Amino acid sequence: MHIDVTFTPSDLAGQDKSGRTVVVLDVVRASTTIIQAIGNGCAQVIPTATVEEAREIAAGLPPHERLLGGERGSQRLPGFDLGNSPREYTADRVRGKIIVFTTTNGTNTIHAAEGAERILIGAFANLPAVAEELAGANSSVILAAAGRLDRPVFDDIVCGGMLIQELQRLATDGITLTDAGMVALHVYQNYEGRILDALRFSASGQNLIGLGEEYQADLPFCAQVGVSNVIPVVQDGRIVALSGAMVLRQAQDEQGGR
Amino acid sequence: MHIDVTFTPSDLAGQDKSGRTVVVLDVVRASTTIIQAIGNGCAQVIPTATVEEAREIAAGLPPHERLLGGERGSQRLPGFDLGNSPREYTADRVRGKIIVFTTTNGTNTIHAAEGAERILIGAFANLPAVAEELAGANSSVILAAAGRLDRPVFDDIVCGGMLIQELQRLATDGITLTDAGMVALHVYQNYEGRILDALRFSASGQNLIGLGEEYQADLPFCAQVGVSNVIPVVQDGRIVALSGAMVLRQAQDEQGGR
Repeated sequence: MHIDVTFTPSDLAGQDKSGRTVVVLDVVRASTTIIQAIGNGCAQVIPTATVEEAREIAAGLPPHERLLGGERGSQRLPGFDLGNSPREYTADRVRGKIIVFTTTNGTNTIHAAEGAERILIGAFANLPAVAEELAGANSSVILAAAGRLDRPVFDDIVCGGMLIQELQRLATDGITLTDAGMVALHVYQNYEGRILDALRFSASGQNLIGLGEEYQADLPFCAQVGVSNVIPVVQDGRIVALSGAMVLRQAQDEQGGR
Repeated sequence: MHIDVTFTPSDLAGQDKSGRTVVVLDVVRASTTIIQAIGNGCAQVIPTATVEEAREIAAGLPPHERLLGGERGSQRLPGFDLGNSPREYTADRVRGKIIVFTTTNGTNTIHAAEGAERILIGAFANLPAVAEELAGANSSVILAAAGRLDRPVFDDIVCGGMLIQELQRLATDGITLTDAGMVALHVYQNYEGRILDALRFSASGQNLIGLGEEYQADLPFCAQVGVSNVIPVVQDGRIVALSGAMVLRQAQDEQGGR
Protein backbone atom coordinates (compact mmCIF):
# COMPACT_ATOMS: atom_id res chain seq x y z
CA MET A 1 0.00 0.00 0.00
CA HIS A 2 1.55 3.26 -1.17
CA ILE A 3 0.84 6.43 0.84
CA ASP A 4 1.64 10.04 -0.02
CA VAL A 5 0.75 13.21 1.90
CA THR A 6 0.07 16.62 0.36
CA PHE A 7 0.21 19.75 2.50
CA THR A 8 -1.99 22.26 0.65
CA PRO A 9 -4.70 22.34 -2.07
CA SER A 10 -2.09 23.56 -4.61
CA ASP A 11 0.19 20.68 -3.67
CA LEU A 12 -2.71 18.22 -4.17
CA ALA A 13 -3.80 19.83 -7.45
CA GLY A 14 -0.34 19.13 -8.91
CA GLN A 15 -0.46 15.35 -8.27
CA ASP A 16 -1.60 12.53 -10.53
CA LYS A 17 -4.71 11.23 -8.74
CA SER A 18 -6.02 8.73 -11.29
CA GLY A 19 -6.76 5.33 -9.75
CA ARG A 20 -5.97 6.63 -6.26
CA THR A 21 -8.00 7.32 -3.12
CA VAL A 22 -7.70 10.85 -1.72
CA VAL A 23 -8.60 11.45 1.94
CA VAL A 24 -9.34 15.14 2.60
CA LEU A 25 -8.12 16.11 6.09
CA ASP A 26 -9.36 19.47 7.35
CA VAL A 27 -9.48 18.67 11.05
CA VAL A 28 -10.17 22.24 12.23
CA ARG A 29 -12.94 22.27 11.15
CA ALA A 30 -14.54 21.35 7.79
CA SER A 31 -13.81 17.59 7.81
CA THR A 32 -14.97 17.22 11.41
CA THR A 33 -18.11 19.21 10.63
CA ILE A 34 -18.96 17.12 7.54
CA ILE A 35 -18.45 13.87 9.52
CA GLN A 36 -20.73 15.24 12.24
CA ALA A 37 -23.39 16.36 9.74
CA ILE A 38 -23.46 13.05 7.86
CA GLY A 39 -23.30 11.10 11.14
CA ASN A 40 -26.31 13.03 12.43
CA GLY A 41 -28.40 11.98 9.44
CA CYS A 42 -28.21 14.80 6.92
CA ALA A 43 -29.08 13.46 3.46
CA GLN A 44 -26.08 14.96 1.70
CA VAL A 45 -23.58 17.81 1.81
CA ILE A 46 -22.98 19.81 -1.37
CA PRO A 47 -19.51 21.43 -1.15
CA THR A 48 -19.00 24.61 -3.17
CA ALA A 49 -15.84 26.64 -3.79
CA THR A 50 -17.58 30.04 -3.61
CA VAL A 51 -20.22 31.67 -1.42
CA GLU A 52 -22.14 32.77 -4.53
CA GLU A 53 -22.34 29.21 -5.82
CA ALA A 54 -23.60 28.03 -2.41
CA ARG A 55 -26.39 30.63 -2.42
CA GLU A 56 -27.37 29.76 -6.00
CA ILE A 57 -27.60 26.02 -5.35
CA ALA A 58 -29.53 26.60 -2.12
CA ALA A 59 -31.96 28.92 -3.92
CA GLY A 60 -32.82 26.04 -6.27
CA LEU A 61 -33.79 23.68 -3.42
CA PRO A 62 -37.05 23.63 -1.40
CA PRO A 63 -36.46 25.82 1.70
CA HIS A 64 -37.58 23.15 4.20
CA GLU A 65 -35.20 20.58 2.68
CA ARG A 66 -31.96 22.57 2.73
CA LEU A 67 -29.57 24.37 4.99
CA LEU A 68 -26.77 26.79 4.05
CA GLY A 69 -23.59 26.21 6.06
CA GLY A 70 -19.97 27.33 6.14
CA GLU A 71 -17.69 30.25 6.77
CA ARG A 72 -15.39 32.96 5.52
CA GLY A 73 -12.76 34.20 7.98
CA SER A 74 -14.07 31.42 10.27
CA GLN A 75 -17.36 33.32 10.71
CA ARG A 76 -20.88 32.31 9.70
CA LEU A 77 -21.98 34.13 6.54
CA PRO A 78 -24.93 36.53 6.33
CA GLY A 79 -28.15 34.64 5.60
CA PHE A 80 -26.53 31.25 6.34
CA ASP A 81 -28.28 28.78 8.67
CA LEU A 82 -25.08 27.34 10.10
CA GLY A 83 -21.40 28.30 10.48
CA ASN A 84 -18.49 25.85 10.43
CA SER A 85 -18.62 24.59 14.02
CA PRO A 86 -19.22 20.82 14.16
CA ARG A 87 -21.17 21.39 17.38
CA GLU A 88 -23.87 23.24 15.43
CA TYR A 89 -24.59 20.23 13.21
CA THR A 90 -26.84 18.38 15.67
CA ALA A 91 -29.33 15.72 14.62
CA ASP A 92 -32.17 18.17 15.42
CA ARG A 93 -30.82 20.64 12.90
CA VAL A 94 -29.55 18.44 10.09
CA ARG A 95 -31.53 15.18 9.95
CA GLY A 96 -32.86 14.57 6.41
CA LYS A 97 -31.58 17.93 5.10
CA ILE A 98 -29.39 18.79 2.15
CA ILE A 99 -26.57 21.05 3.41
CA VAL A 100 -24.97 23.40 0.89
CA PHE A 101 -21.53 24.00 2.40
CA THR A 102 -18.62 26.35 1.66
CA THR A 103 -15.44 26.85 3.67
CA THR A 104 -12.09 28.53 3.00
CA ASN A 105 -9.79 25.51 2.94
CA GLY A 106 -11.74 22.25 3.14
CA THR A 107 -13.98 22.71 0.11
CA ASN A 108 -10.99 23.95 -1.95
CA THR A 109 -9.18 20.74 -1.10
CA ILE A 110 -12.19 18.65 -2.14
CA HIS A 111 -12.17 20.45 -5.49
CA ALA A 112 -8.39 19.96 -5.83
CA ALA A 113 -8.98 16.20 -5.35
CA GLU A 114 -10.98 15.93 -8.59
CA GLY A 115 -9.75 13.13 -10.81
CA ALA A 116 -9.22 10.70 -7.93
CA GLU A 117 -10.88 7.28 -8.01
CA ARG A 118 -12.43 7.94 -4.59
CA ILE A 119 -12.52 11.04 -2.38
CA LEU A 120 -13.12 10.38 1.32
CA ILE A 121 -13.42 12.89 4.17
CA GLY A 122 -11.30 12.16 7.25
CA ALA A 123 -10.46 13.69 10.62
CA PHE A 124 -9.59 12.41 14.09
CA ALA A 125 -13.34 11.80 14.63
CA ASN A 126 -13.50 8.92 12.11
CA LEU A 127 -9.79 8.05 11.89
CA PRO A 128 -10.02 4.37 12.92
CA ALA A 129 -12.93 3.79 10.49
CA VAL A 130 -11.06 5.48 7.61
CA ALA A 131 -7.91 3.45 8.40
CA GLU A 132 -9.87 0.18 8.27
CA GLU A 133 -11.54 1.17 5.01
CA LEU A 134 -8.22 2.12 3.38
CA ALA A 135 -6.45 -1.01 4.63
CA GLY A 136 -9.30 -3.15 3.27
CA ALA A 137 -9.27 -1.47 -0.15
CA ASN A 138 -5.42 -1.65 -0.28
CA SER A 139 -5.16 1.01 -3.02
CA SER A 140 -2.72 3.86 -3.50
CA VAL A 141 -3.63 6.70 -1.15
CA ILE A 142 -3.03 10.45 -0.94
CA LEU A 143 -3.69 11.94 2.50
CA ALA A 144 -4.57 15.52 1.56
CA ALA A 145 -3.98 17.94 4.42
CA ALA A 146 -6.16 20.98 3.67
CA GLY A 147 -3.85 23.53 5.27
CA ARG A 148 -4.89 27.13 5.77
CA LEU A 149 -4.81 29.75 3.02
CA ASP A 150 -2.69 27.35 0.93
CA ARG A 151 -0.01 26.95 3.62
CA PRO A 152 0.58 23.76 5.67
CA VAL A 153 -1.04 23.46 9.10
CA PHE A 154 0.01 21.26 11.92
CA ASP A 155 -3.33 19.72 12.91
CA ASP A 156 -3.99 18.20 9.48
CA ILE A 157 -0.41 16.87 9.21
CA VAL A 158 -0.61 15.28 12.68
CA CYS A 159 -3.92 13.65 11.66
CA GLY A 160 -2.27 12.32 8.48
CA GLY A 161 0.61 10.95 10.56
CA MET A 162 -1.75 9.16 12.95
CA LEU A 163 -3.59 7.63 10.00
CA ILE A 164 -0.26 6.38 8.62
CA GLN A 165 0.61 4.78 11.96
CA GLU A 166 -2.77 3.01 11.98
CA LEU A 167 -2.22 1.84 8.41
CA GLN A 168 1.23 0.48 9.32
CA ARG A 169 -0.56 -1.70 11.87
CA LEU A 170 -3.50 -2.72 9.67
CA ALA A 171 -2.15 -3.08 6.12
CA THR A 172 -1.52 -6.77 5.54
CA ASP A 173 1.12 -6.21 2.83
CA GLY A 174 2.80 -3.31 4.66
CA ILE A 175 3.05 0.27 3.45
CA THR A 176 5.45 2.37 1.42
CA LEU A 177 5.72 6.08 2.23
CA THR A 178 6.88 9.13 0.33
CA ASP A 179 9.12 11.58 2.18
CA ALA A 180 6.04 13.75 2.84
CA GLY A 181 4.43 10.70 4.45
CA MET A 182 7.51 10.14 6.62
CA VAL A 183 7.37 13.80 7.65
CA ALA A 184 3.73 13.46 8.76
CA LEU A 185 4.47 10.24 10.67
CA HIS A 186 7.40 11.78 12.55
CA VAL A 187 5.40 14.88 13.43
CA TYR A 188 2.53 12.72 14.74
CA GLN A 189 4.88 10.62 16.85
CA ASN A 190 5.94 13.79 18.67
CA TYR A 191 2.27 14.36 19.62
CA GLU A 192 1.10 10.83 20.39
CA GLY A 193 -1.39 11.09 23.26
CA ARG A 194 -1.36 14.91 22.99
CA ILE A 195 -3.65 15.56 20.01
CA LEU A 196 -5.32 18.55 21.64
CA ASP A 197 -1.90 20.20 22.13
CA ALA A 198 -1.19 19.76 18.40
CA LEU A 199 -4.50 21.45 17.57
CA ARG A 200 -3.83 24.32 19.96
CA PHE A 201 -0.35 24.92 18.53
CA SER A 202 -1.49 24.85 14.88
CA ALA A 203 -2.27 27.98 12.87
CA SER A 204 -5.89 26.73 12.59
CA GLY A 205 -6.15 26.38 16.36
CA GLN A 206 -4.42 29.70 17.05
CA ASN A 207 -6.91 31.36 14.73
CA LEU A 208 -9.90 29.95 16.65
CA ILE A 209 -8.30 30.77 20.02
CA GLY A 210 -7.93 34.38 18.81
CA LEU A 211 -11.65 34.52 17.95
CA GLY A 212 -12.72 33.78 21.54
CA GLU A 213 -14.05 31.07 23.82
CA GLU A 214 -17.03 30.09 21.69
CA TYR A 215 -14.70 29.19 18.80
CA GLN A 216 -11.97 27.73 20.99
CA ALA A 217 -14.45 25.19 22.31
CA ASP A 218 -14.36 23.49 18.90
CA LEU A 219 -10.78 22.34 19.51
CA PRO A 220 -11.47 19.63 22.13
CA PHE A 221 -14.40 18.52 19.94
CA CYS A 222 -12.14 18.20 16.85
CA ALA A 223 -9.44 16.40 18.90
CA GLN A 224 -11.70 13.43 19.78
CA VAL A 225 -10.40 10.27 18.12
CA GLY A 226 -12.75 7.59 16.79
CA VAL A 227 -16.08 9.00 17.98
CA SER A 228 -17.72 8.27 14.60
CA ASN A 229 -17.84 5.32 12.22
CA VAL A 230 -19.15 7.46 9.37
CA ILE A 231 -16.94 7.86 6.30
CA PRO A 232 -18.18 10.67 4.07
CA VAL A 233 -17.45 10.10 0.37
CA VAL A 234 -17.69 12.58 -2.52
CA GLN A 235 -19.88 11.25 -5.34
CA ASP A 236 -20.80 13.34 -8.36
CA GLY A 237 -19.97 16.51 -6.42
CA ARG A 238 -22.06 15.58 -3.39
CA ILE A 239 -20.93 14.15 -0.06
CA VAL A 240 -22.81 11.16 1.35
CA ALA A 241 -22.06 8.33 3.80
CA LEU A 242 -19.85 5.66 2.23
CA SER A 243 -22.00 2.65 3.14
CA GLY A 244 -25.27 4.33 2.18
CA ALA A 245 -23.79 5.96 -0.89
CA MET A 246 -25.49 3.82 -3.51
CA VAL A 247 -28.90 4.05 -1.89
CA LEU A 248 -28.77 7.83 -1.71
CA ARG A 249 -27.47 8.08 -5.25
CA GLN A 250 -30.40 6.01 -6.47
CA ALA A 251 -32.77 8.32 -4.62
CA GLN A 252 -31.16 11.33 -6.27
CA ASP A 253 -31.44 9.76 -9.71
CA GLU A 254 -35.16 9.14 -9.08
CA GLN A 255 -35.58 12.75 -7.96
CA GLY A 256 -33.67 13.90 -11.03
CA GLY A 257 -36.00 11.82 -13.24
CA ARG A 258 -39.22 13.30 -11.91
CA MET B 1 12.73 36.74 14.01
CA HIS B 2 10.04 35.12 11.85
CA ILE B 3 10.85 31.81 10.12
CA ASP B 4 8.84 29.96 7.49
CA VAL B 5 9.73 26.79 5.60
CA THR B 6 8.67 25.93 2.05
CA PHE B 7 8.83 22.34 0.80
CA THR B 8 9.08 22.66 -3.00
CA PRO B 9 9.94 25.28 -5.66
CA SER B 10 6.18 25.72 -6.39
CA ASP B 11 5.51 26.28 -2.70
CA LEU B 12 8.27 28.94 -2.60
CA ALA B 13 7.12 30.59 -5.83
CA GLY B 14 3.69 31.24 -4.24
CA GLN B 15 5.07 33.18 -1.25
CA ASP B 16 5.59 36.91 -0.79
CA LYS B 17 9.39 37.19 -0.57
CA SER B 18 9.84 40.97 -0.59
CA GLY B 19 12.06 42.18 2.23
CA ARG B 20 12.85 38.61 3.28
CA THR B 21 15.93 36.39 3.19
CA VAL B 22 15.49 33.05 1.40
CA VAL B 23 17.92 30.22 2.19
CA VAL B 24 17.94 27.60 -0.57
CA LEU B 25 18.45 24.12 0.92
CA ASP B 26 19.24 21.38 -1.57
CA VAL B 27 21.41 19.21 0.64
CA VAL B 28 21.67 16.25 -1.77
CA ARG B 29 23.42 17.72 -3.68
CA ALA B 30 23.28 21.17 -5.35
CA SER B 31 23.63 23.35 -2.23
CA THR B 32 26.49 21.24 -0.88
CA THR B 33 28.19 21.34 -4.29
CA ILE B 34 27.87 25.13 -4.60
CA ILE B 35 29.27 25.62 -1.07
CA GLN B 36 32.18 23.32 -1.96
CA ALA B 37 32.84 25.13 -5.27
CA ILE B 38 32.80 28.61 -3.74
CA GLY B 39 34.79 27.40 -0.73
CA ASN B 40 37.44 25.99 -3.06
CA GLY B 41 37.92 29.36 -4.71
CA CYS B 42 35.79 29.38 -7.85
CA ALA B 43 35.12 32.99 -8.91
CA GLN B 44 31.37 32.57 -9.29
CA VAL B 45 28.64 30.06 -10.09
CA ILE B 46 26.03 30.98 -12.70
CA PRO B 47 22.88 28.90 -12.04
CA THR B 48 20.62 28.24 -15.04
CA ALA B 49 17.20 26.63 -15.22
CA THR B 50 17.86 24.78 -18.48
CA VAL B 51 20.73 22.82 -20.01
CA GLU B 52 20.48 24.88 -23.21
CA GLU B 53 20.90 28.13 -21.29
CA ALA B 54 23.94 26.69 -19.49
CA ARG B 55 25.58 25.75 -22.81
CA GLU B 56 24.83 29.17 -24.32
CA ILE B 57 26.29 31.11 -21.41
CA ALA B 58 29.37 28.88 -21.31
CA ALA B 59 29.87 29.33 -25.07
CA GLY B 60 30.14 33.10 -24.46
CA LEU B 61 32.97 32.72 -21.93
CA PRO B 62 36.71 32.10 -22.62
CA PRO B 63 37.20 28.29 -22.44
CA HIS B 64 40.08 28.44 -19.93
CA GLU B 65 38.00 30.59 -17.54
CA ARG B 66 34.83 28.50 -17.35
CA LEU B 67 33.53 25.07 -16.41
CA LEU B 68 30.15 23.53 -17.22
CA GLY B 69 28.64 21.64 -14.27
CA GLY B 70 25.43 19.97 -13.22
CA GLU B 71 23.11 17.07 -13.95
CA ARG B 72 19.89 15.72 -15.32
CA GLY B 73 18.63 12.46 -13.77
CA SER B 74 21.58 12.87 -11.34
CA GLN B 75 24.07 12.15 -14.20
CA ARG B 76 26.71 14.43 -15.70
CA LEU B 77 25.57 15.86 -19.04
CA PRO B 78 27.30 15.24 -22.38
CA GLY B 79 30.08 17.77 -22.93
CA PHE B 80 29.95 18.98 -19.32
CA ASP B 81 33.19 19.27 -17.33
CA LEU B 82 31.64 18.32 -14.00
CA GLY B 83 28.55 16.52 -12.66
CA ASN B 84 26.74 17.38 -9.42
CA SER B 85 28.95 15.59 -6.92
CA PRO B 86 30.48 18.03 -4.40
CA ARG B 87 33.55 15.78 -4.32
CA GLU B 88 34.35 16.72 -7.93
CA TYR B 89 34.59 20.44 -7.12
CA THR B 90 38.15 20.34 -5.76
CA ALA B 91 40.36 23.44 -5.55
CA ASP B 92 42.50 22.02 -8.40
CA ARG B 93 39.49 21.98 -10.70
CA VAL B 94 37.58 25.10 -9.74
CA ARG B 95 39.97 27.76 -8.41
CA GLY B 96 39.44 31.06 -10.26
CA LYS B 97 36.90 29.58 -12.67
CA ILE B 98 33.37 30.65 -13.56
CA ILE B 99 31.10 27.60 -13.21
CA VAL B 100 27.91 27.54 -15.28
CA PHE B 101 25.69 25.20 -13.30
CA THR B 102 22.31 23.53 -13.90
CA THR B 103 20.56 20.93 -11.74
CA THR B 104 17.02 19.52 -11.57
CA ASN B 105 15.85 20.89 -8.24
CA GLY B 106 18.39 23.30 -6.75
CA THR B 107 18.61 25.79 -9.59
CA ASN B 108 14.78 25.76 -9.95
CA THR B 109 14.53 26.72 -6.29
CA ILE B 110 17.02 29.56 -6.76
CA HIS B 111 14.85 30.87 -9.60
CA ALA B 112 11.68 30.48 -7.49
CA ALA B 113 13.36 32.65 -4.83
CA GLU B 114 13.46 35.68 -7.13
CA GLY B 115 12.03 38.78 -5.47
CA ALA B 116 13.66 38.07 -2.11
CA GLU B 117 15.86 40.72 -0.50
CA ARG B 118 18.67 38.18 -0.19
CA ILE B 119 19.09 34.64 -1.47
CA LEU B 120 21.63 32.49 0.40
CA ILE B 121 22.67 28.89 -0.27
CA GLY B 122 22.63 26.58 2.75
CA ALA B 123 23.26 22.92 3.61
CA PHE B 124 24.62 20.97 6.57
CA ALA B 125 28.15 21.90 5.38
CA ASN B 126 27.75 25.61 6.24
CA LEU B 127 24.79 25.40 8.64
CA PRO B 128 26.44 27.03 11.71
CA ALA B 129 27.73 29.90 9.55
CA VAL B 130 24.32 30.46 7.93
CA ALA B 131 22.62 30.38 11.35
CA GLU B 132 25.00 33.04 12.70
CA GLU B 133 24.50 35.22 9.64
CA LEU B 134 20.69 34.98 9.88
CA ALA B 135 20.64 35.60 13.63
CA GLY B 136 22.85 38.67 13.14
CA ALA B 137 20.68 40.10 10.35
CA ASN B 138 17.49 39.33 12.35
CA SER B 139 15.23 39.59 9.27
CA SER B 140 12.23 37.52 8.22
CA VAL B 141 13.46 34.23 6.74
CA ILE B 142 12.14 31.56 4.40
CA LEU B 143 14.03 28.27 4.55
CA ALA B 144 13.37 26.91 1.06
CA ALA B 145 13.72 23.13 0.90
CA ALA B 146 14.35 22.32 -2.75
CA GLY B 147 12.62 18.95 -2.72
CA ARG B 148 12.83 16.57 -5.66
CA LEU B 149 10.70 16.88 -8.80
CA ASP B 150 8.52 19.40 -6.94
CA ARG B 151 7.77 17.02 -4.03
CA PRO B 152 9.11 17.40 -0.47
CA VAL B 153 12.24 15.48 0.50
CA PHE B 154 13.34 14.51 3.93
CA ASP B 155 17.00 15.62 3.84
CA ASP B 156 16.21 19.27 3.04
CA ILE B 157 13.45 19.40 5.68
CA VAL B 158 15.76 17.92 8.34
CA CYS B 159 18.39 20.54 7.41
CA GLY B 160 15.76 23.29 7.75
CA GLY B 161 14.79 21.90 11.16
CA MET B 162 18.38 21.88 12.37
CA LEU B 163 18.81 25.48 11.21
CA ILE B 164 15.69 26.44 13.17
CA GLN B 165 17.05 24.78 16.31
CA GLU B 166 20.30 26.74 15.91
CA LEU B 167 18.34 29.97 15.41
CA GLN B 168 16.29 29.29 18.55
CA ARG B 169 19.59 29.23 20.42
CA LEU B 170 21.17 32.25 18.67
CA ALA B 171 18.36 34.74 18.00
CA THR B 172 18.47 37.33 20.74
CA ASP B 173 14.79 38.28 20.43
CA GLY B 174 13.61 34.68 20.00
CA ILE B 175 11.88 33.25 16.93
CA THR B 176 8.35 32.80 15.67
CA LEU B 177 7.59 29.80 13.47
CA THR B 178 4.90 28.97 10.95
CA ASP B 179 3.36 25.50 11.13
CA ALA B 180 5.69 24.42 8.31
CA GLY B 181 8.61 25.58 10.46
CA MET B 182 7.30 23.56 13.43
CA VAL B 183 7.01 20.53 11.15
CA ALA B 184 10.66 20.85 10.08
CA LEU B 185 11.82 21.30 13.68
CA HIS B 186 9.95 18.21 14.88
CA VAL B 187 11.27 16.10 12.02
CA TYR B 188 14.84 17.23 12.75
CA GLN B 189 14.50 16.44 16.44
CA ASN B 190 13.74 12.83 15.49
CA TYR B 191 17.09 12.69 13.66
CA GLU B 192 19.34 14.66 15.99
CA GLY B 193 22.78 13.02 15.87
CA ARG B 194 21.66 10.78 12.97
CA ILE B 195 21.89 13.14 9.98
CA LEU B 196 23.33 10.48 7.68
CA ASP B 197 20.32 8.22 8.42
CA ALA B 198 17.98 11.05 7.40
CA LEU B 199 19.87 11.45 4.10
CA ARG B 200 19.80 7.69 3.45
CA PHE B 201 16.04 7.48 4.09
CA SER B 202 15.16 10.47 1.91
CA ALA B 203 14.02 10.18 -1.70
CA SER B 204 17.17 12.08 -2.74
CA GLY B 205 19.37 9.61 -0.87
CA GLN B 206 17.45 6.57 -2.12
CA ASN B 207 17.91 7.85 -5.66
CA LEU B 208 21.70 8.08 -5.25
CA ILE B 209 21.88 4.69 -3.52
CA GLY B 210 20.04 3.22 -6.52
CA LEU B 211 22.65 4.69 -8.88
CA GLY B 212 25.51 2.80 -7.25
CA GLU B 213 28.47 3.17 -4.90
CA GLU B 214 30.11 6.10 -6.64
CA TYR B 215 26.94 8.19 -6.14
CA GLN B 216 26.16 6.82 -2.68
CA ALA B 217 29.54 8.08 -1.46
CA ASP B 218 28.17 11.63 -1.74
CA LEU B 219 25.80 11.01 1.19
CA PRO B 220 28.38 10.99 4.03
CA PHE B 221 29.95 14.02 2.36
CA CYS B 222 26.63 15.94 2.33
CA ALA B 223 25.90 14.89 5.94
CA GLN B 224 28.95 16.68 7.37
CA VAL B 225 27.85 19.57 9.58
CA GLY B 226 29.81 22.82 9.75
CA VAL B 227 32.79 21.91 7.58
CA SER B 228 32.64 25.26 5.74
CA ASN B 229 32.30 28.90 6.74
CA VAL B 230 31.41 29.98 3.21
CA ILE B 231 27.92 31.40 2.61
CA PRO B 232 27.12 31.56 -1.09
CA VAL B 233 24.79 34.45 -2.00
CA VAL B 234 22.91 35.06 -5.26
CA GLN B 235 23.62 38.52 -6.70
CA ASP B 236 22.32 39.62 -10.09
CA GLY B 237 21.83 35.99 -11.10
CA ARG B 238 25.34 34.90 -10.06
CA ILE B 239 26.43 33.07 -6.92
CA VAL B 240 29.45 34.41 -5.03
CA ALA B 241 30.78 34.22 -1.47
CA LEU B 242 28.83 36.50 0.87
CA SER B 243 31.82 38.34 2.34
CA GLY B 244 33.58 38.78 -0.99
CA ALA B 245 30.40 39.64 -2.86
CA MET B 246 31.04 43.35 -3.35
CA VAL B 247 34.61 42.89 -4.53
CA LEU B 248 33.61 40.31 -7.12
CA ARG B 249 30.71 42.42 -8.29
CA GLN B 250 33.00 45.37 -8.84
CA ALA B 251 35.35 43.16 -10.87
CA GLN B 252 32.40 42.01 -13.02
CA ASP B 253 31.30 45.59 -13.62
CA GLU B 254 34.81 46.46 -14.77
CA GLN B 255 34.85 43.44 -17.08
CA GLY B 256 31.43 44.45 -18.43
CA GLY B 257 32.75 47.95 -19.14
CA ARG B 258 35.73 46.80 -21.18
